[in-house]
Amino acid sequence: MNEKEIQKTIEALKGKSIDMFGKDFLLTWEKSRDELDATFIVASALRALREANVSTKIWETGIAVSNFRDNSTRTRFSYASACDLLGLYVQDLDEGKSQIAHGETVRETANMISFLTEAIGIRDDMYLGEGDTYQREVAKSLDEGVKAGVLPARPAVINLQSDIDHPTQAMADFLHLADHFGGLDQLKGKKIAMTWAYSPSYGKPLSVPQGIIGLATRFGMDVALAHPEGYDLIPEVVALSKKQATASGGKFSHSNSMDEAFKNADIVYPKSWAPYDVMQQRVPLLHANDSAGLKDLEKKCLENNAKFKAWECTEEKMKLTKGGKALYMHCLPADITDVSCKAGEVAATVFDRYRDATYLEASYKPYIIAAMILLCKAKDPAGLLKDLMKRGTKRSMI
Amino acid sequence: MNEKEIQKTIEALKGKSIDMFGKDFLLTWEKSRDELDATFIVASALRALREANVSTKIWETGIAVSNFRDNSTRTRFSYASACDLLGLYVQDLDEGKSQIAHGETVRETANMISFLTEAIGIRDDMYLGEGDTYQREVAKSLDEGVKAGVLPARPAVINLQSDIDHPTQAMADFLHLADHFGGLDQLKGKKIAMTWAYSPSYGKPLSVPQGIIGLATRFGMDVALAHPEGYDLIPEVVALSKKQATASGGKFSHSNSMDEAFKNADIVYPKSWAPYDVMQQRVPLLHANDSAGLKDLEKKCLENNAKFKAWECTEEKMKLTKGGKALYMHCLPADITDVSCKAGEVAATVFDRYRDATYLEASYKPYIIAAMILLCKAKDPAGLLKDLMKRGTKRSMI
Amino acid sequence: MNEKEIQKTIEALKGKSIDMFGKDFLLTWEKSRDELDATFIVASALRALREANVSTKIWETGIAVSNFRDNSTRTRFSYASACDLLGLYVQDLDEGKSQIAHGETVRETANMISFLTEAIGIRDDMYLGEGDTYQREVAKSLDEGVKAGVLPARPAVINLQSDIDHPTQAMADFLHLADHFGGLDQLKGKKIAMTWAYSPSYGKPLSVPQGIIGLATRFGMDVALAHPEGYDLIPEVVALSKKQATASGGKFSHSNSMDEAFKNADIVYPKSWAPYDVMQQRVPLLHANDSAGLKDLEKKCLENNAKFKAWECTEEKMKLTKGGKALYMHCLPADITDVSCKAGEVAATVFDRYRDATYLEASYKPYIIAAMILLCKAKDPAGLLKDLMKRGTKRSMI
Repeated sequence: MNEKEIQKTIEALKGKSIDMFGKDFLLTWEKSRDELDATFIVASALRALREANVSTKIWETGIAVSNFRDNSTRTRFSYASACDLLGLYVQDLDEGKSQIAHGETVRETANMISFLTEAIGIRDDMYLGEGDTYQREVAKSLDEGVKAGVLPARPAVINLQSDIDHPTQAMADFLHLADHFGGLDQLKGKKIAMTWAYSPSYGKPLSVPQGIIGLATRFGMDVALAHPEGYDLIPEVVALSKKQATASGGKFSHSNSMDEAFKNADIVYPKSWAPYDVMQQRVPLLHANDSAGLKDLEKKCLENNAKFKAWECTEEKMKLTKGGKALYMHCLPADITDVSCKAGEVAATVFDRYRDATYLEASYKPYIIAAMILLCKAKDPAGLLKDLMKRGTKRSMI
Repeated sequence: MNEKEIQKTIEALKGKSIDMFGKDFLLTWEKSRDELDATFIVASALRALREANVSTKIWETGIAVSNFRDNSTRTRFSYASACDLLGLYVQDLDEGKSQIAHGETVRETANMISFLTEAIGIRDDMYLGEGDTYQREVAKSLDEGVKAGVLPARPAVINLQSDIDHPTQAMADFLHLADHFGGLDQLKGKKIAMTWAYSPSYGKPLSVPQGIIGLATRFGMDVALAHPEGYDLIPEVVALSKKQATASGGKFSHSNSMDEAFKNADIVYPKSWAPYDVMQQRVPLLHANDSAGLKDLEKKCLENNAKFKAWECTEEKMKLTKGGKALYMHCLPADITDVSCKAGEVAATVFDRYRDATYLEASYKPYIIAAMILLCKAKDPAGLLKDLMKRGTKRSMI
Repeated sequence: MNEKEIQKTIEALKGKSIDMFGKDFLLTWEKSRDELDATFIVASALRALREANVSTKIWETGIAVSNFRDNSTRTRFSYASACDLLGLYVQDLDEGKSQIAHGETVRETANMISFLTEAIGIRDDMYLGEGDTYQREVAKSLDEGVKAGVLPARPAVINLQSDIDHPTQAMADFLHLADHFGGLDQLKGKKIAMTWAYSPSYGKPLSVPQGIIGLATRFGMDVALAHPEGYDLIPEVVALSKKQATASGGKFSHSNSMDEAFKNADIVYPKSWAPYDVMQQRVPLLHANDSAGLKDLEKKCLENNAKFKAWECTEEKMKLTKGGKALYMHCLPADITDVSCKAGEVAATVFDRYRDATYLEASYKPYIIAAMILLCKAKDPAGLLKDLMKRGTKRSMI
């Protein structure tokens, strides 16, 4: 984008009715369409500004907390990149190195880490029924801290993956789709297959498929959810997606057939996850550190998984899609047959063809996260972006 | 504070006779009253500047080392926040990931991490007789490094908790007291009860109570130290506190009665710690990694602790204080009865009433740490603060 | 250096024919003499600018990735200091905390961490035959990422120690030598003894001695490599060093006598390493996590090491050197007899005499790393350095 195009992008923000200031970004379905659109616009503007070598450093000093309760590579780097892009220093809350084990409450920790903090990114995806709850408890504690005059400002809580949603992933995926298809409005009527896929591992969170169906149904798409019998997502999220599909003038189908879902699809997103009820059974075992119980559950699940090896995104399956050329998507890392495992989610030849596309897909995440932080913190995001352009500080002297 | 008030605060610095440049901040009792006052003033000025959205970034680039030899949440975040506030990048010296195990000397490590370093924060509180010694060895090594022309400048060593003192905690606590009571001079004659309290855990460092009595006795306060028989602090620190109390026109009492200490107190600070002689016995066991010996010691201590469950800050105890309304303080996390443990240091209802106050108390720490660094590094701190105001760079564009 | 001298230093860059832009810094022998000289010049200029309190912050925002596959203290701090000096935020790729175990390919990870990244520093020195290969795989993946339009720019890969070379160490060592002897041209004809030395540990990488002989032979020096029989370096690196010595008008000798090497030496670099074939045997054992096999190998090696306790840099050995006053060098930490071990690489009295010199030697590393990054990223390094001077932002307000 040249300067004029960036300005036009920023102008587009003005027509949007947004009420994000002082709030968090936890679930996409808590945000209005205008707010989602605003997030895409700000992300695009930030990317364009960086590519035009304009510094988007909004803060001279300030802390961004990261709290990863599960492993992470790409989200960790995306979050660090996003925060640095805005001028924030990332301080990791490593619960193993902290005194939290001393019996400190969430309320207390949330305040203790927030005196000079602008944003708190949290990944908590392993414990069904708990991740989102934890994030809200942090958010509530921050509200109380501000109200009590303990905190000078309200840090924004950014969901970096919970048990329910993975909004930074889903939003990045959809900015990728918007760019790929020539705009968000081009998604209307497009068919997206969000399907389970076989994996030799188990216990993968439900948040990605839930995030995708929860977001795709906002844009009038034809959303086909498919998985083997028993591999259900959280029922409430499926119900919500159905309702959203109707409201946005789209469709929502739910089947046990990968072929059905792939048929004539414009986009396919084949990805493994653990069944809802297994995730439920796993929570008390994890809490009890019951390794024998966990092993039993794993064994049972892997045996069950093995019945569904046919749920692989092969060349044959791809042929079912629109013109055989659906866009393949994945949040990465994918289980690639004969590459990272013997049998996996996707055939090597299919993945190879779409490798760059999946990398590009991932490249949107830092900007999406930065946009979320910016929108939660800035009263006048359009004005702020204009100020950045006007200031014109070079990001790099090179 | 408005601009004029900040200027007035900075002016107050001019009357103080301070000799902190090029030195460290290890023990409050090594600093003159003027130097302590200067630290409070600079901390307040930095806080006010930040609240007025004035950037206090003194360094464009520069490293601040953190070395946590014990777990930490609030001090870790306070240190990171303080360093970021001044423009420093925190690099953690994680001894587990370093080559220090290869037999590297303190002298060598101290120099190796300091070529571009402005400050080194160290927590070393577990080993009685060693933490402060280690910090001084680092400091001495830095002196030698500067003298030998190896280091371009002397990084300031900041004690983030040693076996003897916890100055960033105690100083933050007292800035809180000054703000609460309307000025440091208002503390004269006020009674502060620094008492032991029951905890179901053991081995808590002595540095907090020592830091409090070592600092409170500088301000002409009526300091009441109380603990069960056998739960002594380091005798030299108690002796020093007595002397300081006399010198500052205050009082110092030392009893084995919580009630005695609470009686008519303006401030209470009930907090568990391990007895001095237990901490001494523990050191060789820790060094020898003698887990059986440590378990034995723990068992013996917990049994002994259990005799003193009455040392809890209950509503009844609070009624003994001045008007039943003493200010409750704690460095956090507190062992709260029926919240973080079955029986602990403080009753839930008492803690609840003072929760926000304790959080506010903690909020001073980042500014205290930043002030310590600034005063150790700046020849003309008042001039520097004025320059920051004059420069007027906004901390946040939002 | 005063301003004029800095300008003169920068001018010296203009005569150099360099082709480093968009590339990596992996092995010194892949770089021309002009490129090595340019690296020394830029490092000296950056150091002088910092000492003159001129900010060398080239980037307002940007990420530098560090990937330490082996422990590190000084290189970790040097890298962090270098990156901060240029304005980059260091994000560590901690493979233990990442999803890399999920079977992610190098290609994928390299792209995922690089969307907003300017430099990637990698230490991978333990696995003979693999470290350099890994670094090149990362580099190739980045090339592909740029080509595919996935990455907006090519991050520079900096070798922070591989199985073959340790260029940031060797280059820092030689900038130290240049300053010590009054210029790089003064090194011509000087004798440097790169010798094995006894250590009670085993498994030390070959990259330091290889780095030293691979670099010293570029400057027309008289390079004497010596080690006990069986303690070979990688044969190809030795062969290359011989060739380079001839090409640069120097000498290269290879013996099994420490005395021979020390005789009349201007510089001695006595340092332990594991024999080449042991390092080779160790790789499959490490991969297999074969702790019994590793213990066996260690035992055998330590027994063999013990035959060569006479390979210690004692006062007697030092007397063999030119006027008994050769410059002692070490990458640190050294195994010092009666200090860090019972019998080691160097006598305590010798080390004591040269302690400050070795610390000074280490002090060049941050600047060498910064220079490498700068030269890989800047099309016009001389122009950039001039711009920094012209901008004249103070690094520190103090």
